[in-house]
Amino acid sequence: MEKKTVFSGMRPTGRLQLGNLTGALDSWIKLQDKYRCLFCVVDWHALTTAYEDPTQLKENTYDMVINWLAAGLDPEKSIIFRQSDVKEHAELHLLLSMFTPLSWLERVPTYKDQLQQLKGKDLHTYGFLGYPLLMAADILLYRAEAVPVGEDQIPHLEITREIARRFNYLYRQQFFPEPEAILNKVKILPGIDGRKMSKSYGNTIDMSDHPDEIRKKVRKMVTDPGRIRKNDPGNPDVCTAFVFHGVFNTEEVANVEQVCRRGEIGCVQCKKQLAERIVSFLEPIYERRQALENKKDYIRAILTDGAKRASALAAENMAKVRELMNLGQL
Amino acid sequence: MEKKTVFSGMRPTGRLQLGNLTGALDSWIKLQDKYRCLFCVVDWHALTTAYEDPTQLKENTYDMVINWLAAGLDPEKSIIFRQSDVKEHAELHLLLSMFTPLSWLERVPTYKDQLQQLKGKDLHTYGFLGYPLLMAADILLYRAEAVPVGEDQIPHLEITREIARRFNYLYRQQFFPEPEAILNKVKILPGIDGRKMSKSYGNTIDMSDHPDEIRKKVRKMVTDPGRIRKNDPGNPDVCTAFVFHGVFNTEEVANVEQVCRRGEIGCVQCKKQLAERIVSFLEPIYERRQALENKKDYIRAILTDGAKRASALAAENMAKVRELMNLGQL
Repeated sequence: MEKKTVFSGMRPTGRLQLGNLTGALDSWIKLQDKYRCLFCVVDWHALTTAYEDPTQLKENTYDMVINWLAAGLDPEKSIIFRQSDVKEHAELHLLLSMFTPLSWLERVPTYKDQLQQLKGKDLHTYGFLGYPLLMAADILLYRAEAVPVGEDQIPHLEITREIARRFNYLYRQQFFPEPEAILNKVKILPGIDGRKMSKSYGNTIDMSDHPDEIRKKVRKMVTDPGRIRKNDPGNPDVCTAFVFHGVFNTEEVANVEQVCRRGEIGCVQCKKQLAERIVSFLEPIYERRQALENKKDYIRAILTDGAKRASALAAENMAKVRELMNLGQL
Repeated sequence: MEKKTVFSGMRPTGRLQLGNLTGALDSWIKLQDKYRCLFCVVDWHALTTAYEDPTQLKENTYDMVINWLAAGLDPEKSIIFRQSDVKEHAELHLLLSMFTPLSWLERVPTYKDQLQQLKGKDLHTYGFLGYPLLMAADILLYRAEAVPVGEDQIPHLEITREIARRFNYLYRQQFFPEPEAILNKVKILPGIDGRKMSKSYGNTIDMSDHPDEIRKKVRKMVTDPGRIRKNDPGNPDVCTAFVFHGVFNTEEVANVEQVCRRGEIGCVQCKKQLAERIVSFLEPIYERRQALENKKDYIRAILTDGAKRASALAAENMAKVRELMNLGQL
């Protein structure tokens, strides 16, 4: 039996953070054997918010692919490529736009959220409104049957399914499958100051951080603010470091909780243990990153090959889409 | 000195009418020697309103090109091609969308007009809102310096110029010229019943009409409704046939006016004269049409060659656009 197709993308907006690794990337790596996977650096999507200054776009693309490979994505198993290398994404986006109601796009919950949150940027653009449609085109272009998503992206998948249904109805063929969600069940990692991990807060741990940098950041991580002396009983429920123990120190986390509540371990020592767990988790990735960092030719070759393989699938599907919409060969 | 580039397009929505000929087409034919012209069958644009039933799209494309050639467009001089054959139109449309404010599109006068007029169709779609942007992409893709337009299309050209300016500002290079209007100064032809000429009113004279069909239609043309007997004085100011005399019988129009006002010619006879003028104007076109009608291979070859030449220009310009937006070769 043929493997099902899975599509997923990530915007090359800057350094990957620890949260990307434990969130999307770990789940991608697991999907590689079971599915035919396409993993896409969605540089056109990055433009929806970065159109005023796209100068880092290429550097970020390289950096992202290096992180992906270091984390364990395998270009032999999966198709790794850059969105802007496969022009059919733009063509399908345009064709789907013809019958996609404005109201479907306007009601996407993240749309108004983001307009609010990124107030410094002028995002009242046609492209920003259309990004869920571009996402739908990305997925449908490969007739993907499943998409790994976080909880917050479920509305995007829902609109993709609606667009697929509308196409199939209008052009009278069950051509596009309605893609299913593969839910990433991962605890969201906070920043070292306890707020949302975000570059703009300066509270991130990045995949490219040197082990010593990680140790330094974990040392500064906030813990139970009510704990004054190191043998006071601690409250792990309000401790940022404890969230990280839950992800990177799963074997000892129950014990960590116990000794903390009993005041048998100080925060400094507890975070030292944690730092070593994170370092040993990240170290092999860090080393693979180092080995890849100056191999631009190698990265380029992977993306070129990926684009070729993605284009072949896209071309086949677009030929059919054009035929159904009466835009085919004259 | 190199010739300036001119771009223009027409939607393949059905039979061409006499008004298309005396309006856009006649002006295109004159431009062919002075400019490097690209004339485009904009089938993607047709989809913005015809997405629910695109079954006639290919037939209409053939028919339109046949009319163009019959009227005098010369594929040796001009690049004649189909929009959907040059995917860069979609790519540039997507890239320009990133920085095009929604408000620019919402305020285009024809947008709300058409939403009103085509009430039977659901046009509250993302693609319909974006059609002036697709038009801008069509023009800018070839860095066209001039565009033949009717009065009503000036707002579209204005938005194209604004988009060009915004691109040049954001990416710090005077890359896109701001295209100038070449105004078609043509009297708008009414339908034979005096209303706007429109397929839906059944009052058109089509370029593909047989001479006898034209004679029949002109016979039914409305004249001064206040004139009862044929030797009553007539009023050319309210006579539909007189509008046509002004376009197709320019040598005699002054005399026609005089004898009408004096009641020296009856409407029947006057329209007989007019019909012969229109027939003799259309007859060579009609004959060329007949000769082309079953030459699908020939039409296809013209469009294939046109697409090749247009693509070469588009590829060159898009390489530069991608470079300026940092989306180029890795």
